[in-house]
Amino acid sequence: MQIENLDHIGIVVGNLDEAIKFYQNTFGMKLVHYELIPERGIKVAFLVSNEKNETSIELLEPIDHNDMSNTVAKFLKNRGQGLHHLAIKVSDINRALEELTAKGLQLVDTSPRKGARGHLVAFLHPKSVMGVLLELVQAKEL
Amino acid sequence: MQIENLDHIGIVVGNLDEAIKFYQNTFGMKLVHYELIPERGIKVAFLVSNEKNETSIELLEPIDHNDMSNTVAKFLKNRGQGLHHLAIKVSDINRALEELTAKGLQLVDTSPRKGARGHLVAFLHPKSVMGVLLELVQAKEL
Repeated sequence: MQIENLDHIGIVVGNLDEAIKFYQNTFGMKLVHYELIPERGIKVAFLVSNEKNETSIELLEPIDHNDMSNTVAKFLKNRGQGLHHLAIKVSDINRALEELTAKGLQLVDTSPRKGARGHLVAFLHPKSVMGVLLELVQAKEL
Repeated sequence: MQIENLDHIGIVVGNLDEAIKFYQNTFGMKLVHYELIPERGIKVAFLVSNEKNETSIELLEPIDHNDMSNTVAKFLKNRGQGLHHLAIKVSDINRALEELTAKGLQLVDTSPRKGARGHLVAFLHPKSVMGVLLELVQAKEL
């Protein structure tokens, strides 16, 4: 398996709009995408440092901070704001999941689902990735 | 302030050599740098997904897992393996630190010090970066 690149770093924040302004004003980052994802109970924003770099940051805030069935709300309550997951881009997510399953890795999502930006995504369990919650991303066809 | 790009994602691991093999064998990443940094009590490895992408991952292991004066050993004991810090590249680290101080951000390093790969680095306090331990990196002159 050969990943294409690091797609993004997921960061949980307590207030998405304040966080976007912070990253814009403090580090000059640019907002490239903003999305409400009701089926996952989160709202997200993607920011980049420059147009050339392929790796972005994804800021995530739970829609309902008190919904402890939501993993992001639970993360925010238990660990506070901070680094949440690492996402890598693959060309064929189904094949990647097959390969990783064959290697014995534990999957959170056994089949890809639609994630932010319309991309196909699937998460691997941190226990199988040395403590890192890892997301596979296959870009949607344009 | 305008950052150049995301330089790397720092990931704390319990066994550096095993972690390198894991990222190589599981995701096809390439080892580009390995360094023992005795003055910081850690050994580190940098891996990239491809030559083109500017953002790498840095795997960090404390040299002495029981030295609780070492922040990485403490992190490993208290939180376990996982995402540790985010590093952004700047062209002028002294100017960046001045600007960030003027904006009221709390610094861990008030002046740059030599970090991995001979680069100049300085850490910002997570309290000032919405829970993210942020490292500024200025590439050494070639």
